[in-house]
Amino acid sequence: MNDLEIRPATPEDIPAIVAMLADDPLGAQRESPDDLAPYRAAFDRLASDPHQRLVVADRGGQVVGTLQLTVIPGLSRRGASRSIIEGVRVEKTERGSGLGTILIEWAIAESERLGCQLVQLTSDATRIDAHRFYERLGFEASHVGFKKPL
Amino acid sequence: MNDLEIRPATPEDIPAIVAMLADDPLGAQRESPDDLAPYRAAFDRLASDPHQRLVVADRGGQVVGTLQLTVIPGLSRRGASRSIIEGVRVEKTERGSGLGTILIEWAIAESERLGCQLVQLTSDATRIDAHRFYERLGFEASHVGFKKPL
Repeated sequence: MNDLEIRPATPEDIPAIVAMLADDPLGAQRESPDDLAPYRAAFDRLASDPHQRLVVADRGGQVVGTLQLTVIPGLSRRGASRSIIEGVRVEKTERGSGLGTILIEWAIAESERLGCQLVQLTSDATRIDAHRFYERLGFEASHVGFKKPL
Repeated sequence: MNDLEIRPATPEDIPAIVAMLADDPLGAQRESPDDLAPYRAAFDRLASDPHQRLVVADRGGQVVGTLQLTVIPGLSRRGASRSIIEGVRVEKTERGSGLGTILIEWAIAESERLGCQLVQLTSDATRIDAHRFYERLGFEASHVGFKKPL
């Protein structure tokens, strides 16, 4: 775990993040790492939203992981804010290194720091290993996640 | 469906919204309609976040439904923005009236208008009727929803 730092993503990290998003059984079908323009536009939208934290795991100058944390205020649960974790990726060479745990534990600690009373995420029903991973970290598979493309 | 309007929630709507949140098998255990202070503070957080839409269904001046829509920018899926629906409630007297469908269809249309490429939500695993409802509206139960209280 030498030199590992979880830090805010910068525009220079976009190619490495997109490469990780695409290097995945589901992501391979829906990403376009050869055309970064839509990702740069999306990065600007993220950077202008104070409720977003897009971070990378940086090991000695190499981007080896990423996730996005969003804080959502709400009335439910006595006015609780909740955080949502999206876009969790770990570089193939780092799998099994504990980096996924470090990233999620960072997200949990940051959510607490930001005053959230709940942290949540959805995981594709086919990602069975990921489900076991989140349960080990104290998440409960209490909900069904519905999606509808527009 | 006379006089039905989906409109932004105002501070005056907080008691009616909280009453609906509490009037629910799960909400009854976690809401406090007798103490509105935390809800008023949360309403202020919502109102100051331009990516939030808290709306009510208003029928002739009576609040009969509510939902919250959040727009989340992101890098995944070629820089797609997605929306998340939370806190859907319909007044008991309106159940079966089609109001739930009107609310969700409003959220879908608003998500498209705001440039989202995906709309998503999670529903407690015990809410079987809600799951059928979302599937009828074109949502796919493709994910597992994980939550962790903080």
